[in-house]
Amino acid sequence: MRILVTNCNTTEAMTEEICQGARRAAAPGTLIHGLTPSWGPESAEGWLDSYLSAAAVLDLLRGEAEDAAAGGEPFHAVVMAGFGEHGREGARELLDVPVVDITEAAAHLACLLGRRYAVVTTLDRTRGQIEDSLHTAGVAGHCAAVVGTGLGVLELDDRSRSLAAMGTAAGRARAAGAEVLVLGCAGMSQWADELAARTGMPVVDGVAAAVKLAEALVGLGLNTSRVGSYGRPLPKRRLWSRPEAAPPVPEAAPQPAD
Amino acid sequence: MRILVTNCNTTEAMTEEICQGARRAAAPGTLIHGLTPSWGPESAEGWLDSYLSAAAVLDLLRGEAEDAAAGGEPFHAVVMAGFGEHGREGARELLDVPVVDITEAAAHLACLLGRRYAVVTTLDRTRGQIEDSLHTAGVAGHCAAVVGTGLGVLELDDRSRSLAAMGTAAGRARAAGAEVLVLGCAGMSQWADELAARTGMPVVDGVAAAVKLAEALVGLGLNTSRVGSYGRPLPKRRLWSRPEAAPPVPEAAPQPAD
Amino acid sequence: MRILVTNCNTTEAMTEEICQGARRAAAPGTLIHGLTPSWGPESAEGWLDSYLSAAAVLDLLRGEAEDAAAGGEPFHAVVMAGFGEHGREGARELLDVPVVDITEAAAHLACLLGRRYAVVTTLDRTRGQIEDSLHTAGVAGHCAAVVGTGLGVLELDDRSRSLAAMGTAAGRARAAGAEVLVLGCAGMSQWADELAARTGMPVVDGVAAAVKLAEALVGLGLNTSRVGSYGRPLPKRRLWSRPEAAPPVPEAAPQPAD
Amino acid sequence: MRILVTNCNTTEAMTEEICQGARRAAAPGTLIHGLTPSWGPESAEGWLDSYLSAAAVLDLLRGEAEDAAAGGEPFHAVVMAGFGEHGREGARELLDVPVVDITEAAAHLACLLGRRYAVVTTLDRTRGQIEDSLHTAGVAGHCAAVVGTGLGVLELDDRSRSLAAMGTAAGRARAAGAEVLVLGCAGMSQWADELAARTGMPVVDGVAAAVKLAEALVGLGLNTSRVGSYGRPLPKRRLWSRPEAAPPVPEAAPQPAD
Amino acid sequence: MRILVTNCNTTEAMTEEICQGARRAAAPGTLIHGLTPSWGPESAEGWLDSYLSAAAVLDLLRGEAEDAAAGGEPFHAVVMAGFGEHGREGARELLDVPVVDITEAAAHLACLLGRRYAVVTTLDRTRGQIEDSLHTAGVAGHCAAVVGTGLGVLELDDRSRSLAAMGTAAGRARAAGAEVLVLGCAGMSQWADELAARTGMPVVDGVAAAVKLAEALVGLGLNTSRVGSYGRPLPKRRLWSRPEAAPPVPEAAPQPAD
Amino acid sequence: MRILVTNCNTTEAMTEEICQGARRAAAPGTLIHGLTPSWGPESAEGWLDSYLSAAAVLDLLRGEAEDAAAGGEPFHAVVMAGFGEHGREGARELLDVPVVDITEAAAHLACLLGRRYAVVTTLDRTRGQIEDSLHTAGVAGHCAAVVGTGLGVLELDDRSRSLAAMGTAAGRARAAGAEVLVLGCAGMSQWADELAARTGMPVVDGVAAAVKLAEALVGLGLNTSRVGSYGRPLPKRRLWSRPEAAPPVPEAAPQPAD
Repeated sequence: MRILVTNCNTTEAMTEEICQGARRAAAPGTLIHGLTPSWGPESAEGWLDSYLSAAAVLDLLRGEAEDAAAGGEPFHAVVMAGFGEHGREGARELLDVPVVDITEAAAHLACLLGRRYAVVTTLDRTRGQIEDSLHTAGVAGHCAAVVGTGLGVLELDDRSRSLAAMGTAAGRARAAGAEVLVLGCAGMSQWADELAARTGMPVVDGVAAAVKLAEALVGLGLNTSRVGSYGRPLPKRRLWSRPEAAPPVPEAAPQPAD
Repeated sequence: MRILVTNCNTTEAMTEEICQGARRAAAPGTLIHGLTPSWGPESAEGWLDSYLSAAAVLDLLRGEAEDAAAGGEPFHAVVMAGFGEHGREGARELLDVPVVDITEAAAHLACLLGRRYAVVTTLDRTRGQIEDSLHTAGVAGHCAAVVGTGLGVLELDDRSRSLAAMGTAAGRARAAGAEVLVLGCAGMSQWADELAARTGMPVVDGVAAAVKLAEALVGLGLNTSRVGSYGRPLPKRRLWSRPEAAPPVPEAAPQPAD
Repeated sequence: MRILVTNCNTTEAMTEEICQGARRAAAPGTLIHGLTPSWGPESAEGWLDSYLSAAAVLDLLRGEAEDAAAGGEPFHAVVMAGFGEHGREGARELLDVPVVDITEAAAHLACLLGRRYAVVTTLDRTRGQIEDSLHTAGVAGHCAAVVGTGLGVLELDDRSRSLAAMGTAAGRARAAGAEVLVLGCAGMSQWADELAARTGMPVVDGVAAAVKLAEALVGLGLNTSRVGSYGRPLPKRRLWSRPEAAPPVPEAAPQPAD
Repeated sequence: MRILVTNCNTTEAMTEEICQGARRAAAPGTLIHGLTPSWGPESAEGWLDSYLSAAAVLDLLRGEAEDAAAGGEPFHAVVMAGFGEHGREGARELLDVPVVDITEAAAHLACLLGRRYAVVTTLDRTRGQIEDSLHTAGVAGHCAAVVGTGLGVLELDDRSRSLAAMGTAAGRARAAGAEVLVLGCAGMSQWADELAARTGMPVVDGVAAAVKLAEALVGLGLNTSRVGSYGRPLPKRRLWSRPEAAPPVPEAAPQPAD
Repeated sequence: MRILVTNCNTTEAMTEEICQGARRAAAPGTLIHGLTPSWGPESAEGWLDSYLSAAAVLDLLRGEAEDAAAGGEPFHAVVMAGFGEHGREGARELLDVPVVDITEAAAHLACLLGRRYAVVTTLDRTRGQIEDSLHTAGVAGHCAAVVGTGLGVLELDDRSRSLAAMGTAAGRARAAGAEVLVLGCAGMSQWADELAARTGMPVVDGVAAAVKLAEALVGLGLNTSRVGSYGRPLPKRRLWSRPEAAPPVPEAAPQPAD
Repeated sequence: MRILVTNCNTTEAMTEEICQGARRAAAPGTLIHGLTPSWGPESAEGWLDSYLSAAAVLDLLRGEAEDAAAGGEPFHAVVMAGFGEHGREGARELLDVPVVDITEAAAHLACLLGRRYAVVTTLDRTRGQIEDSLHTAGVAGHCAAVVGTGLGVLELDDRSRSLAAMGTAAGRARAAGAEVLVLGCAGMSQWADELAARTGMPVVDGVAAAVKLAEALVGLGLNTSRVGSYGRPLPKRRLWSRPEAAPPVPEAAPQPAD
């Protein structure tokens, strides 16, 4: 079984880290193939980033689907590794293989481990997106809280700072009724075991959860329903990037109209 | 990995059928061990049956845990194969291995396959129990409907009658917005493929789903949280059956006070 | 009018205490007949206990119904006196008289006395069960919180300790918006008046509430609907306890598989 | 025990009919005293009527409270007999005795008799009010539907027409999942038994239910909480009707601005 | 365009203040005509006041509609300026022009400015009414909290005390997740700008919001639906105030029956 | 006041049609400036289209903001004219002016006109997106249904076919309890008046509603909160389109991996 794992941002080092986690979770016969979008944000922290990321990841998956259709190596499932990021439903329309997003995956497994779970995430500003993503995935019912640590996606490598912030957030999660923790960012996976040891709570990593759920669906021969919401995209003209001749200008920081 | 699969009723033929389905779903290294409660109802169709079944299944699992603790063959997870039946949370308190109930399991996978799912079940009278079970498991949000077929648990072997009734129920499910079907009784598994072919919708079987989710949890080293709801049972005196000397009198049909 | 009041555990002293409360609440012509299950847990604190209790109480009620049908003294309603415990719906299927559970009863009356109520209960681990029981009874909408006192069921006789813990819990309930308190354990009834005096809030005792609601239903000639969920149990073979010849072994403390 | 029963409209014949129902439901020692507002609508069918009725009924109760305070005959509870009509919370602020509204009362008892209930009411236009009233009373969770019969409040005396329309509405209620019926107008009480016989469902009459709940609260010494929402009205200047010298002009039919 | 703005109480100074705010918000061609009910409470703080106010305001609007129908100056919309007060739906039945209540209006605009909003209001006792009003208006979904300041309606003129109390309440609103503030009393409008400056959050004033929404509806030619809930009031006999010959006795403070 | 109105697709004729509607709705001093994304789908019908559209529209708005910051013509609000399409929250982060999406705008006004509203939209497959968009905007509470007509976005010009399909959908909306209709596609605006005349229900067009709400926010000086969710995008490297040198290849119809 070959699973594509898509990073939601353009940072290849993070793709590699995600893939390592995916490989640790994968069953013996599962091959993990990591993919980095060629455009989009270097990290996704907010709705603007998330929508940009969604289009870039769908563009990436479109290419993979075309390659496979043209005789390239096939794949059997897709794991979308952006916690709280958009795009999931579009991938389900686009692809003829199961699609599992790490947000929903972590929540599904967390529900099996305790009566309520909480998400420990990076910046407070991403909490709303995660809440919405859990709601639209149908798994928000048992979410006690989404708690921010104040750490940016690219700051998660500092072990003591990360663990301290995650521990504080876990305490708030517990006070809100959580019995299980979900890591709300693919970059937090490295601290899962230590956080579990400190808090006494199971800690669910979305990438690992999504790999297992993708394996489960493929193993059972289950695929996305084409009845109703996720029919194949209608044939029509779509332009997947700006038609300018000039090379794309990377953006350092947005300069709004004020 | 060794998974115990508990039937919710005393009918051994159904345990065998459930185990066959579980084995078809299991990964190569997974051993399925089916268990039939020594007491309880011969089929579970309603709350009285369900509560009786819950106690009998917990009694059964208590015995297994004691056997394992006394040096018997260990097990790594439990699948509870009674759709909509009670007992799940008690097993989570009792056991030190993950517990997955087929009701919640089917719903978790169904959520990954379409925007809304429906449960096709046996008698209309069991709909309420299933709705409550999905709610307390945190997966009711995307359930479009629970639809009865009018077939009793022990009538599911008639192929044409079963498929006709399930097809009608599936049509009502679709009209209610469902894009994915969940089989609401372990005895319906045999008709999953034909129902999928007739309706064009993915059909999720709870036993298969639960085996894969149990494998996933064990594979990731995740276990029930002991923080909060599912602490170990408190030490106390519990009598697991009537202290009468006389053998238990099987009940043909209840004769209420009217 | 003769009302059966079932204790949820095997502790006869608690049955007696419950009956005293029931008799204080009962109208002049109402006879209260207390029943203690012959098996089950000595106190119910968690799901395992609750499911064991549910089966034992249903077994007890089955016997009462058979006795009455065989010419024994009839009864006109049943009050189930286990706060948050399971079994209610099974008794409604089984019996031809109204069934009122003390959890729902207290909540129904509490809704008439203020805009939001809270439940003050024993151990934190039982909060989830109570929340689920209120939800499935249709009265969770106005529940502001279920707050634990940390006291076990069998520790409620210490007056100063009980009142101190209940007062603290009441403060948290008020902060959560509660205007009315519900006592979340039959053993707390003895402290109802003092708690009301200390907090200035009405305090609803479930046993008293259930007796009045049972009297109301009987007085109005209303009975459980047989349409839909609560049809009579289907005739089938049910074994109500283990078929072993050996006497049941009481359990001191569970020894899970670790 | 003396219970005041307030009609929501100025039609004295309906007050009398309501009181007869209340007396049938009342326990031996309960005295029912019916009250008709001296102003307001002759029947309440819609929000304009309902708000007018609320003020008139509160004015009426204000007078009763003043009379009792001035040494008149005391009362122990109030039943507000306007199904879906406003005013309930104001009466709770105003009075030092329990207040029970027939809408909530019927729903509370209905929840004890089946898993879902429905309200069968008069005109479709009143459905929204009833839904809102159930919601704000905390008992909407188990309401499967509010179904109109198309009959006006003052048309309910025609037996065959009323029963035919109520039977049709009951069928729709059952299809929506209801297992218990609630009569959504005090004037429907006369047909309760026949409707129950025709449908096989318990039929709950709000006036009877409210009398029993009022008796229950008084019997248990429970009273409205003064903590939070329902504090006593603040002392201030209130004018309870128009200060014109001229006699009030009855309104035949409103003539809006078109 | 001529918009009637109804105060919910009899205090003319407050009508004037409300009208000033309405005029600041109004577009150039919009005429604001303030109306004070001739009866009712001098301020509305609780349900008793609110229901009394509702009837008095509907009586006022009835007069305006009759005047307009009789050839008086027409009006094009009504703004009801009682935050959390009742009456809205009755006015929609009564009038053939759009009706906007300041509670719902503020919430509608607040939803456009942030992911969650909170209401900062006067006394804690009015919180429940406001929550219910937001719910029945369909805009409660994004309300993070309704927070009381402890200030009475007639105490809002003290600048430093008002701002201090509103600032504290705003802090609690922010902690509950609010990103936008709504002023929960027409008398708070004067402090909107200072509160916005202190908190960094947008502050929505209901009177201003309602004027803009009324202008929007009139500008688009949209009017209340007559299909379903808000049909014209049925022709019937309605008495709008007590038929006594004696002048109405103002009430200083209610004297309940205790 | 200058309002930018963004089409969600690349079809300029539709931008023009949208702008005509916006101009009809706009107040005298409001300038409407229509914008068509330079990339994206030619029509948005499904999640893939919607996410592609969101990125393209944000890219477009980014350019406008940069132009304005560089001394170009400023704008005071943005109306996003894709019914049910994504992107709204990203635009709120990006821009320093109010952003109103036509989906939420129509729902906000519809709530003021009746107790429940329904959306009549194009293809059934877009219903889920619209439901999610209403939910995340906080206005789903009063949505009775989202009903598809079966018409594609580009088929709406056929008058008789469009009106027939919309009339049928309106009938289903009414049966679901709707009292107000919302047009679920910018291309349906042309049929608003005829649909209102046929159904007797108010018909709300999202573009018109959004223009009025944008005018309202600007008129009141209200702007998106920067506290919490919608902070300015963090400075980071973002690539807004594929870095290939080759011109973008338009896609005729996706060829998934099957």
